[in-house]
Amino acid sequence: MQADTIEWIENSLTEYMDMTQKAMLDYFPNKEPHRYLYDLIPSYPKRSGKGLRPGLCIATCHAFGGSTHSVIRTAAAIELFHNAFLVHDDIEDGSEFRRGLPTMHKEYGIGIAINVGDAMNVLSIRALMDNLNSLGPNLTWLVFAEIEHMVRESVEGQAMELGWVWDNDGKITEADYLRMILKKTCWYTCIHPCRIGALIGSGGSADLDSFNRFAYYMGAAFQIQDDALNLDGEHERYGKEIGGDIYEGKRTLMLIHLLNNATPAEYQYILNFLALPRKDRSSYKVTEIYELMLKYKSIKLARTKARHLAGAALREFHIAYGQLPDSKDKKLIESIILYMIERDI
Amino acid sequence: MQADTIEWIENSLTEYMDMTQKAMLDYFPNKEPHRYLYDLIPSYPKRSGKGLRPGLCIATCHAFGGSTHSVIRTAAAIELFHNAFLVHDDIEDGSEFRRGLPTMHKEYGIGIAINVGDAMNVLSIRALMDNLNSLGPNLTWLVFAEIEHMVRESVEGQAMELGWVWDNDGKITEADYLRMILKKTCWYTCIHPCRIGALIGSGGSADLDSFNRFAYYMGAAFQIQDDALNLDGEHERYGKEIGGDIYEGKRTLMLIHLLNNATPAEYQYILNFLALPRKDRSSYKVTEIYELMLKYKSIKLARTKARHLAGAALREFHIAYGQLPDSKDKKLIESIILYMIERDI
Repeated sequence: MQADTIEWIENSLTEYMDMTQKAMLDYFPNKEPHRYLYDLIPSYPKRSGKGLRPGLCIATCHAFGGSTHSVIRTAAAIELFHNAFLVHDDIEDGSEFRRGLPTMHKEYGIGIAINVGDAMNVLSIRALMDNLNSLGPNLTWLVFAEIEHMVRESVEGQAMELGWVWDNDGKITEADYLRMILKKTCWYTCIHPCRIGALIGSGGSADLDSFNRFAYYMGAAFQIQDDALNLDGEHERYGKEIGGDIYEGKRTLMLIHLLNNATPAEYQYILNFLALPRKDRSSYKVTEIYELMLKYKSIKLARTKARHLAGAALREFHIAYGQLPDSKDKKLIESIILYMIERDI
Repeated sequence: MQADTIEWIENSLTEYMDMTQKAMLDYFPNKEPHRYLYDLIPSYPKRSGKGLRPGLCIATCHAFGGSTHSVIRTAAAIELFHNAFLVHDDIEDGSEFRRGLPTMHKEYGIGIAINVGDAMNVLSIRALMDNLNSLGPNLTWLVFAEIEHMVRESVEGQAMELGWVWDNDGKITEADYLRMILKKTCWYTCIHPCRIGALIGSGGSADLDSFNRFAYYMGAAFQIQDDALNLDGEHERYGKEIGGDIYEGKRTLMLIHLLNNATPAEYQYILNFLALPRKDRSSYKVTEIYELMLKYKSIKLARTKARHLAGAALREFHIAYGQLPDSKDKKLIESIILYMIERDI
């Protein structure tokens, strides 16, 4: 992918993210209790992720001929749900860094962080309710139903992943993993942002199910790339702990591949490592697991899988968006597919 | 309060709670992931609380001439939000028992428990969305707005309370405490159940603000009685750890009274105790704090306060419900006021 294309994609996403952040500000109350609630709500949103979710939502709405004004509040709600999810996810996974800064619960304790996440969820609901005036009751309601499904799929995927760690399950397959990330990542990162953008952009006439396969492939490629960057990315650019997923015992595609290909002795060694409390997982042992992944080419194969998924997404793009007139936004969505697997942040 | 009145109140609440539990069952999915999500969702609801929230909501709806059918799904949603809140609240407070059984996070870890609470919240939203057919768009929307406010007040009150513990604040006043429980307890335990019952029962014509003072007084009396039972109730009947609030450092009215009346040496001793990590708070020290509360009559005075609040609720009851024709349900709501402060569970 050429440098100027990457720059164009990142600038476009940043532009949509800036609009979304501005819309989000309307939902950050400036009132008591400040210190342990409303002052903390902007903390994650201000750390500025890539803006993939609002970007896909706004661009899809535009590609269908819809206005920024009609979709921006919903894009803000999606981003706010995402950040609420991250605050809870960081506690659930025991993560220490998020976008280069300490996680919310590391700074303010688990109790306050759970409550801040809960507050962000209800503020997102408020943003969706405010669609009533601009979208009318019918579209507002349909958007609500999309979001309800989005959140339900996320908690189901999260339960699968947390259950594997809790059971210290070593028998997960690639198919299990793909089902988990469909639920945990794809619905809320790609499928629903595209569906909702199309819903609002088309005024309710688009066939929303036509986005499911495209956005599933895109989301899966995104997640696997994210897991690979967690292993071999640069800390400064990536913003999380390198190897953090190994510390957390997350069942990534690489770990699953390693467990399925290791010798019985290696398998047992890895399971014993994963049974340790996090504080006993030394960086020495994490490096050993990482080296086993190199030995079995687990990272390389995962990146190949991500490329295949991106290829499938490109094919599906033409089914989902092909009938729409050419536009900057249509081009952007198509370009994001390869960007997903070539990005280093 | 006579034994047969107490029995009648408890039987009536149980009857409404049973209906609510039956309606809740429709929202417990019987699907994957079972083990660490949907199998756990009924855990708290099955532990059967007193059923105060659905009881107030259904009885108020009936008192306004509304049907059980019209309100039951919303009562189920309120009870489900309440249970989601309890799952998160138990983590936030570090509680070990809930209604006689180990708390969710004690059994399944913090991560899984947070996610179960999040799932219960989205299932409640589903229940509210299903009002559309029976209540029509206008009432469904108004109920939604009530719930959105209910959740927002709860997280604000929770933030106040968690912040006081986090700061180890020894300068809280009774006025601070009452503002906190207005937000954390009263809105979602009494005010909104009554408002929503009236909204549905009257088909939208009732003056909802007329319930605010009545239900605030009732909720405050309820909370103070609950805190008193935590200190001197019977474990078997009460179902939580006796003295658990002292272990957790919760700023109850009794602790606030004690801090405001202790000698400087005692004050410092208590603050030092509250600065300890929970595991270092020995039962010996908890008993010392309890005995200081006895010395300063903190529990006795709190119970007096609860009685005064119940008296104020009785007066306000006639303003809020006085214009309605006499009925079993109107009588029930009035009777609950004194029951609040005389119950031992």
